[in-house]
Amino acid sequence: PDAGAQAAAQARDAVLTKPPGALGRLESLVLWLAGWQGRAIPQADRVQVAIFAGNHGIAARGVSAFPPEVTVQMVANFRAGGAAINQLCKAFGASMAVHELSLDRPTADFTEGPAMTEDELVEALATGWNAVDPEADIFIAGEMGIANTCTAAALAAALFGGLGWAGRGTGVDDAGLSRKAATVEAGLERHAGHLDDPFEVLRRLGGREVAAMTGAYLAARAHRVPVVLDGFISCAAAAVLHKARPGALDHCIAGHQSAEGAHARLLAALDKAPLLSLGLRLGEASGAVLALGVIKGAVATHSGMATFAEAGVTAG
Amino acid sequence: PDAGAQAAAQARDAVLTKPPGALGRLESLVLWLAGWQGRAIPQADRVQVAIFAGNHGIAARGVSAFPPEVTVQMVANFRAGGAAINQLCKAFGASMAVHELSLDRPTADFTEGPAMTEDELVEALATGWNAVDPEADIFIAGEMGIANTCTAAALAAALFGGLGWAGRGTGVDDAGLSRKAATVEAGLERHAGHLDDPFEVLRRLGGREVAAMTGAYLAARAHRVPVVLDGFISCAAAAVLHKARPGALDHCIAGHQSAEGAHARLLAALDKAPLLSLGLRLGEASGAVLALGVIKGAVATHSGMATFAEAGVTAG
Repeated sequence: PDAGAQAAAQARDAVLTKPPGALGRLESLVLWLAGWQGRAIPQADRVQVAIFAGNHGIAARGVSAFPPEVTVQMVANFRAGGAAINQLCKAFGASMAVHELSLDRPTADFTEGPAMTEDELVEALATGWNAVDPEADIFIAGEMGIANTCTAAALAAALFGGLGWAGRGTGVDDAGLSRKAATVEAGLERHAGHLDDPFEVLRRLGGREVAAMTGAYLAARAHRVPVVLDGFISCAAAAVLHKARPGALDHCIAGHQSAEGAHARLLAALDKAPLLSLGLRLGEASGAVLALGVIKGAVATHSGMATFAEAGVTAG
Repeated sequence: PDAGAQAAAQARDAVLTKPPGALGRLESLVLWLAGWQGRAIPQADRVQVAIFAGNHGIAARGVSAFPPEVTVQMVANFRAGGAAINQLCKAFGASMAVHELSLDRPTADFTEGPAMTEDELVEALATGWNAVDPEADIFIAGEMGIANTCTAAALAAALFGGLGWAGRGTGVDDAGLSRKAATVEAGLERHAGHLDDPFEVLRRLGGREVAAMTGAYLAARAHRVPVVLDGFISCAAAAVLHKARPGALDHCIAGHQSAEGAHARLLAALDKAPLLSLGLRLGEASGAVLALGVIKGAVATHSGMATFAEAGVTAG
């Protein structure tokens, strides 16, 4: 991040007509944006939302409340403008594009072998990388992929260890939850001894849309575009970079904490404090885009407020 | 609230293209708005923000980090468009008006006698009542008044009992905090035996801008206009109604939890879960207006999303 821009933003914040620190987290958001955008007065006008969709071999194991054909149906819904994320992008003035990743070719069932070949992983990472607009003020990735909370749980378990990463996702019952936990466990057993390299974890246990998000977050870092992370799957994709290099997610903030059981734990592992915590569990980037309200509010106050001198207000 | 509109909103929510409950708190926000607005598809276009300003006799006791002349200076800043709340109202498309309540005539020091006469209380309540637009989709009140976190602490202490309601407000040091706590204690002692009626508590320990907020929240209830509460002072004003009649704040939600020490405790006393918790402690309605992002997102998804049937998506 650009220390000069951050210092200039901080100096401006100190003379705006409010008690020092009174805007709380909005003030640190401005400094974060200023640093990554390299602008003393950051902007949040050009927000890019990219939705990645993929299908998963493990969907056949009954780990979702919805059948796998819903992935392609929801992609059509995104294109027709009918999904939640369409309304949220419209409400917050964000641009939105959908990227399908070989929906007719699900990843391999990771309990039987690696989810992706090396070529498939590279292709998915590149799709994400190429989706990022280097000129965006803020980048947000979302996902759609029936069974992908199970995929994300397997990634989190492999990257951070421990049990209990599987959750209810779109709303599986107790039997479905048991199948998810068993699937994660079987995946970890199947790939034991090959889970030291985070990108190899992604190849063996991940999914195409998850890898695309990983690639996109990496591209955003290269272009110094600040990122708002979404829910459990988004954070699992980001966790690959976190494990690969400490600080690799300094350009990212957590938009929200979702209702998915292990998301709070994953955020803690990434050392990210969420902006919102409203019980969402939809994916599609919905929580991250909802958090834009807070970010836009932060930018609006910082850029528009009068200083004590301008307003003739006595400083404390 | 209109049970028919709520039922219709719930029925629509159930067929929108998302897993049941996946939008979390956004879904309950929609039902709350639908009930009070009497519309199956609620709106959040016409948001009215009214800022009330008053001065306090206790300001002379050194209970604020800022001198009392800042109240009138900040009112000028509101009118000139330079304050935080101006930027937030602009960002979220809310209308904003400022109401000054006899700034040249502070309330009496409540450690010496009642803060207001009965006539003064009624005038302040009426100012608030008359400020509310009965056609607004949502009403938000904010305040400006040097020393009014001390006033609000006295109100909370008198209404709910217990110690420790005084906090750092705009940022007083330890000595200032001690003076605030002592002022609250002296007020409660001075008026002991006269604190059973919540409106009498308001008259004896409150302030004009606080009473205006109380009157406004009551008017909003009469007009069935949903309200977003702001911070500690806003909630103290609302608490008068809560103590006067259980359920009197059913038309209100908490926009945020502020950094003011006892705000979380006051929200708990009102049984309100905040939408945001971002460490704000500015007043001016800033937290409530910031929460509009979430509310507008809720309304946008509910009103704009396609149903499973419309989108050809398989329900779970």
